Amino acid sequence: MFEKVEVDESYIRIPKDRLEEFYINVLTALSVQKEDARIVADNLIIADLRGIESHGAQRFGRYVRAIKKGTVNLKPDIKIEKESQVHALLDGDEGLGQPVSYKAMMLAIEKAKENFIGMVGVRNSNHFGIAGHYSLLAVDRDMIGISMTTTRPLVVPTWGLERAVGTNPIAIGIPVKDKPPFLLDMATSVVATGKFELYKRKNKPIPEGWGLDGRGEITTDPNKVLSEGAELPLGGLGELLGGHKGYGLSLAIDALCGVLTNATWSKWVKNTDEKRSNVGHMFIAINIDAFTPVEDFKERMKRMIEDVKRSKAMKGKKIWYPGEKGAFTAETRLKIGIPVYHKVVEELNGFAREVGVERLV
Amino acid sequence: MFEKVEVDESYIRIPKDRLEEFYINVLTALSVQKEDARIVADNLIIADLRGIESHGAQRFGRYVRAIKKGTVNLKPDIKIEKESQVHALLDGDEGLGQPVSYKAMMLAIEKAKENFIGMVGVRNSNHFGIAGHYSLLAVDRDMIGISMTTTRPLVVPTWGLERAVGTNPIAIGIPVKDKPPFLLDMATSVVATGKFELYKRKNKPIPEGWGLDGRGEITTDPNKVLSEGAELPLGGLGELLGGHKGYGLSLAIDALCGVLTNATWSKWVKNTDEKRSNVGHMFIAINIDAFTPVEDFKERMKRMIEDVKRSKAMKGKKIWYPGEKGAFTAETRLKIGIPVYHKVVEELNGFAREVGVERLV
Repeated sequence: MFEKVEVDESYIRIPKDRLEEFYINVLTALSVQKEDARIVADNLIIADLRGIESHGAQRFGRYVRAIKKGTVNLKPDIKIEKESQVHALLDGDEGLGQPVSYKAMMLAIEKAKENFIGMVGVRNSNHFGIAGHYSLLAVDRDMIGISMTTTRPLVVPTWGLERAVGTNPIAIGIPVKDKPPFLLDMATSVVATGKFELYKRKNKPIPEGWGLDGRGEITTDPNKVLSEGAELPLGGLGELLGGHKGYGLSLAIDALCGVLTNATWSKWVKNTDEKRSNVGHMFIAINIDAFTPVEDFKERMKRMIEDVKRSKAMKGKKIWYPGEKGAFTAETRLKIGIPVYHKVVEELNGFAREVGVERLV
Repeated sequence: MFEKVEVDESYIRIPKDRLEEFYINVLTALSVQKEDARIVADNLIIADLRGIESHGAQRFGRYVRAIKKGTVNLKPDIKIEKESQVHALLDGDEGLGQPVSYKAMMLAIEKAKENFIGMVGVRNSNHFGIAGHYSLLAVDRDMIGISMTTTRPLVVPTWGLERAVGTNPIAIGIPVKDKPPFLLDMATSVVATGKFELYKRKNKPIPEGWGLDGRGEITTDPNKVLSEGAELPLGGLGELLGGHKGYGLSLAIDALCGVLTNATWSKWVKNTDEKRSNVGHMFIAINIDAFTPVEDFKERMKRMIEDVKRSKAMKGKKIWYPGEKGAFTAETRLKIGIPVYHKVVEELNGFAREVGVERLV
């Protein structure tokens, strides 16, 4: 059994089902449609189960605040604007990001079933939560799933001083025989924005190399990064260690999710609690049988992963593959509950009081 | 006008056309078919024009040695093993990587013209040179082009001590109105292997953070990395600054290019001068008109790029977008010639002598 983050007495363990029920209660009390509430809850739960604390319970408040401010359309009329046998473009009508993203990936999967590939873009959407959720929908159906999104501009371009590009994450999910799926779910910045929020909430300094203060100097203060500074792209400051690669990936995701879909690119993406954040997403499903029988493929994925894991590790270290730690963490947490930070539990209980549903704990 | 690398008197400027003619002369003298020789030459020239010295003239020797050793099939029978309206799988029959890659991307483009998306995998191939070459074929036809490949295993997985994954590059090309195309062409390691070879050839220390020596310590000696050590994934050592992301991207490319295509994954990829290197590639073309009129898209790409370039830069620095420096470098070099390092010129003249064609200069 494995726990990714340091979990101490400042965390309260909550059974997954209780947390799910709680999210749905709060969201439906706020007039979110039941089916949509369930998808948002799923997304938060998957994040917390897999140890991605930045996108779990601590993120719920953002959605609640946006809904209360009325900046999210709770009865969106999701339209298919373009469509062929292998692609589609959806207009999310400014609704919650998770339900339209779920629909988009399921549509991509349908297309890939019949025609080998499905590529579905979304515009006029909002924050979609954890990208891996949608890629796993494809993996559950024995396909390769790729999900991407624009985000608010919180990252400097290489040599830049100002926030101008997004943390634009990509998640690539791939089925593997007898093992947890391969799931690479990564921001194209050094770390996701939620990580800064987490360190801020815990009053802890961030490692050097994650972000800049307002003068463009490396800082260890998460508050400075979040208030006046900016995050660094994967590869870090300048070009020496490949910072232009993280920046380039971020722009490529802007092009696919923001420019191609007629949403906006990260520079103009708004926070969910501002009107019309206009986030864009892209979902791709690949039918493995197009290239090779899926069972052979999964067997070969297993062998590839075993090859890497078998290679020599540094002293006291172990070699993991993407998605493996998350799957182990989920196994544990399904048994003993999801640890929620005490301040987040207080926040959630506050929401319960406001909307008149039962407290979380 | 702009020059990316330090070019001094140890370089000799050679007109692009002369270099192209020279490559074709040597290759055809070695029994490479004329059309294939032209594609290999194009690939080398594009690299050198764009300032990617690691994949230009200095790389030619590798192909020549492989051909002379007889490990590359010069009369490959390239077969389409699987095919639909939107995808195909080609068997490269152990021929040169560049010609089959060119065919594969052109096939992907054909499919995308008719059916919006084209995804073509290749197995039984060899080193395909610079990935950007193929993505630009799509860009030239107003499409988005994505190219990837497995490589030899020269990179450590996160926390690993042994070479176990590839530098597995990806190139994403996107057309832009009135500007050079967006072209992100990146190894998923901190830098490409050719960069180590370049520093070795010039007897220069590499920056800290590019590679490890045989004991797993950071080294500045390119010889140690190339002989006994290993390269680091993008994001560097461990997980603190995202090394698991570069490693994860490398494995994802292994899955798409090596596992899905029934080639092998990087762990078992051989050098081109060993028998059956069995490299795998993947090429994707996306028809922009599927989602939005291509002229609108290009206009919006231009605006996105201008937004980023307009943001505040660090003192004395400028903000570039992927592909921009390369395009400026190419403009200069088309006018005043491609600088080739004196030792590389000697090597090329040596090949000319061996196969009985005119010296380069």
